[in-house]
Amino acid sequence: MTASTEPRELKHQALRAKLEKLLDGMSAGDPFPAERELAERYDVSRETVRQALRAVLLQGRIERRGRTTIVASPKVVQPLMIGSYTEAALADGRSASRILVGWTHLVADEELAGHLHVEVGAPITQLERVLTTDGYRVGLETTQLPAERYPGMFDNFDHTSSLYAAIMERGIKFERTEDSIDTTLPDAREAALLTVDARTPMFLLNRISYDQNGIPIEHRRSLYRGDRMTFTTTLRSRHD
Amino acid sequence: MTASTEPRELKHQALRAKLEKLLDGMSAGDPFPAERELAERYDVSRETVRQALRAVLLQGRIERRGRTTIVASPKVVQPLMIGSYTEAALADGRSASRILVGWTHLVADEELAGHLHVEVGAPITQLERVLTTDGYRVGLETTQLPAERYPGMFDNFDHTSSLYAAIMERGIKFERTEDSIDTTLPDAREAALLTVDARTPMFLLNRISYDQNGIPIEHRRSLYRGDRMTFTTTLRSRHD
Repeated sequence: MTASTEPRELKHQALRAKLEKLLDGMSAGDPFPAERELAERYDVSRETVRQALRAVLLQGRIERRGRTTIVASPKVVQPLMIGSYTEAALADGRSASRILVGWTHLVADEELAGHLHVEVGAPITQLERVLTTDGYRVGLETTQLPAERYPGMFDNFDHTSSLYAAIMERGIKFERTEDSIDTTLPDAREAALLTVDARTPMFLLNRISYDQNGIPIEHRRSLYRGDRMTFTTTLRSRHD
Repeated sequence: MTASTEPRELKHQALRAKLEKLLDGMSAGDPFPAERELAERYDVSRETVRQALRAVLLQGRIERRGRTTIVASPKVVQPLMIGSYTEAALADGRSASRILVGWTHLVADEELAGHLHVEVGAPITQLERVLTTDGYRVGLETTQLPAERYPGMFDNFDHTSSLYAAIMERGIKFERTEDSIDTTLPDAREAALLTVDARTPMFLLNRISYDQNGIPIEHRRSLYRGDRMTFTTTLRSRHD
């Protein structure tokens, strides 16, 4: 084992703890002291300040507004659940909306055909939207649906509304979802759509939702900003 | 909306798709072509190759071995579940072990006292270990336990074994856990312990486990390498 395995605190970690304490006493929207001011106040180098600021930025505690830095709103805490992002946000008293990025008509490749239980080459409707909450762009959601199962649904669909609700209105129940959760960095386009820099860790959720008959409803790829979202889950032991 | 909202494919994304196809036909441990060779083969710049390689590296599809690059083993797919990381790995037919980083004796601060339902100032035993599976260092786990609830348990504890099993042997059942899941970047010490570079996105799981009487057993902070781990979960609708 090398020296690095010994618990020890680096300068920027010590500063980070101090900045976190400072932030505890501030409110969302307050201007946060500038780099130079922090370097003087805590008697550390500008580089140490930059590293500590980077850490609290990725924690979602501060955010950049042009050349100034302000105290960020708390991260969005979202239970892992069936149903749409928006329902969860509204239930939590937060505002939530969607910005249309695009509709695309695809044909299923082998992988997607497997996911959705359709033939290779079957028509797929893809909807891509940015999810917003309380003014933040928090996620980018790409939903792929077998076009022939939802005739007419997209003709008059209001893209700011819940796709989940529109599918339920057709008597289809969301019975079960299979999720996988990865972390990733956004590519340039994703970073631009989510107003983050390309070094911001993201959650990548891939979900297949199944109806009451075990038929896949949708494949959904959701990219969530790691600096804006915390997921929670409660697990219970299976009783013997 | 700016031009960046139009679905379009950047050069390195196109190359990334080609590299993924190339990887589909290769096996774990195979040497992966060098940067210069890829630039020539696909007629793109070295910078484009670097960006595409970075993306497949973070996906966990390739890994660096000194100056060469090889095809990585598949990511570890881990269900979100009660119990220890190791039990899940072994159940899945993978090897799993732990490397001791350190034991620390702390006193509970206000936050930890709240988590563990103990008095501020109560003694806490903290165990920090690196989790390994199939030779990879995949996670860094810091467990904090109220010292007085487990008298003698740590005197002869084999730190390569399961803490979860040792607690269960005392008749304590893991009944429920409350988890929160964030993404983060590792600090320098964490990156060194997990043999990753500091730009690798990580999962940060914070868990409090409760026993059959609703008493907190432990607070656990687990940092998992995003390039090595995928979490999965199945959700079912609550029936009316």
